[in-house]
Amino acid sequence: MKKQFAVIGLGRFGGSICRALSQQGMEVLAIDLDEDRVNEFASIATHAVIADTTDETVLKNLGIRNFDHVIVAIGDNLQASILTTLMLKELGVKHITVKAQNDYHEKVLNKIGADKVVHPERDMGLRIAHNIVSNSVLDYLELSDEHSIVELMANSKMGGKTLAELDVRAKYGANIVAIKQGEDIIVSPMASQQINKGDILIVIGSDKDINRLERHILDTE
Amino acid sequence: MKKQFAVIGLGRFGGSICRALSQQGMEVLAIDLDEDRVNEFASIATHAVIADTTDETVLKNLGIRNFDHVIVAIGDNLQASILTTLMLKELGVKHITVKAQNDYHEKVLNKIGADKVVHPERDMGLRIAHNIVSNSVLDYLELSDEHSIVELMANSKMGGKTLAELDVRAKYGANIVAIKQGEDIIVSPMASQQINKGDILIVIGSDKDINRLERHILDTE
Ligand SMILES: Nc1ncnc2c1ncn2[C@@H]1O[C@H](COP(=O)(O)OP(=O)(O)OP(=O)(O)O)[C@@H](O)[C@H]1O
Ligand SMILES: Nc1ncnc2c1ncn2[C@@H]1O[C@H](COP(=O)(O)OP(=O)(O)OP(=O)(O)O)[C@@H](O)[C@H]1O
Ligand SMILES: [Ca+2]
Ligand SMILES: [Ca+2]
Ligand SMILES: [Ca+2]
Ligand SMILES: [Ca+2]
Repeated sequence: MKKQFAVIGLGRFGGSICRALSQQGMEVLAIDLDEDRVNEFASIATHAVIADTTDETVLKNLGIRNFDHVIVAIGDNLQASILTTLMLKELGVKHITVKAQNDYHEKVLNKIGADKVVHPERDMGLRIAHNIVSNSVLDYLELSDEHSIVELMANSKMGGKTLAELDVRAKYGANIVAIKQGEDIIVSPMASQQINKGDILIVIGSDKDINRLERHILDTE
Repeated sequence: MKKQFAVIGLGRFGGSICRALSQQGMEVLAIDLDEDRVNEFASIATHAVIADTTDETVLKNLGIRNFDHVIVAIGDNLQASILTTLMLKELGVKHITVKAQNDYHEKVLNKIGADKVVHPERDMGLRIAHNIVSNSVLDYLELSDEHSIVELMANSKMGGKTLAELDVRAKYGANIVAIKQGEDIIVSPMASQQINKGDILIVIGSDKDINRLERHILDTE
């Protein structure tokens, strides 16, 4: 059986989740107090309803207990967010993800049994700061506190060299696991692979090693 | 010389960028209209000032043209966001990143010369939806429209097997580039490496191959 999702609150965050889940072919119930927002999602989600989720009867009538995963994306009204989460939990919803506005909100949500608490603005701020600090880091995935996978743009100093000539592994301890050349992705490139200026290198390693690599072969143009 | 950053607007998004840049040892000027927010960042940023950035004289007096990168994180007041961006551009700031509220806002920002426009709530919504759809995908990095790096949790079906036994490359076309076992990260694991239930596999490949891998060896518990 298909998994059933419900998204409560159709602002930018909840709306984006609702769109993405629907695009991936999931069954999604979209819920908001606001009639205009609900109308906007009528043609996107499987069902879209106007409802106040702080009302227990409303939640029961929606059969919310049968949903596999409910996302609470109510932002500014902390009380509505907390009350909704509490009732979803009491009604036995298996998996609840909630957007938090601040640390206090997060603490309360964790205490009442939210399975996952997210801070979209804060987390995106961290990602953007990471990308900004180094002009060469385009995107990254944090594997642990000390290890990451980053996308680095090859500069003219690297252009024309092969991986063997650059010898990144031995010199910096970091590993090039893939290379993007235009539309092509070369996974596990061979030592004879040539790098061109503008290629995007997917590098895995400790943050220390990646930083050294960036400083030594990228930032010196 | 150290790069100089300025962050205008110290809400959750701008505040998070300001904190992260400061933590990484960058020079950061924090700017907001709101005295309380500025006070909060006085001990975090290099400098923190109360200022209305829609006033050109104010921007000039702050010497904003000398900053390498200015982040405009004014949200709800579209007019203030647009006017600030326009003046930063006219004063010759080299790199300007701006938070957009909606598509219309983004279009205007691009037209007046913003170098990068970001949608924190929408982009985090997409990431969260991606993680939610598959219970096994913990985090991911999109390499292209068709290729990703994802973190997958090994289940009991994989536990106790070696990479050679699983033979992911030949069977699914995807590559395991690293394994997280508790605190340890094993980069470029050998074929003899044993997987334990709960290990986190870092997999690179086409979305199609990764999805097949998930369906066949992960979702069948
Ligand atoms: N009790 C409630 N029941 C259902 N929906 C609610 C309830 N309270 C608020 N909402 C809805 O939650 C949505 C998100 O609320 P929020 O205050 O965060 O708006 P927003 O700032 O537009 O969201 P975002 O930051 O994601 O763009 C709104 O569309 C609002 O109508
Ligand atoms: N003209 C201006 N000059 C300087 N700062 C401004 C100006 N206009 C707004 N700001 C500041 O920008 C900050 C962000 O504005 P926004 O309306 O997005 O608040 P927010 O919702 O708290 O932010 P976030 O969504 O990042 O949490 C606020 O602290 C506000 O005081
Ligand atoms: Ca909001
Ligand atoms: Ca890190
Ligand atoms: Ca806001
Ligand atoms: Ca993709």
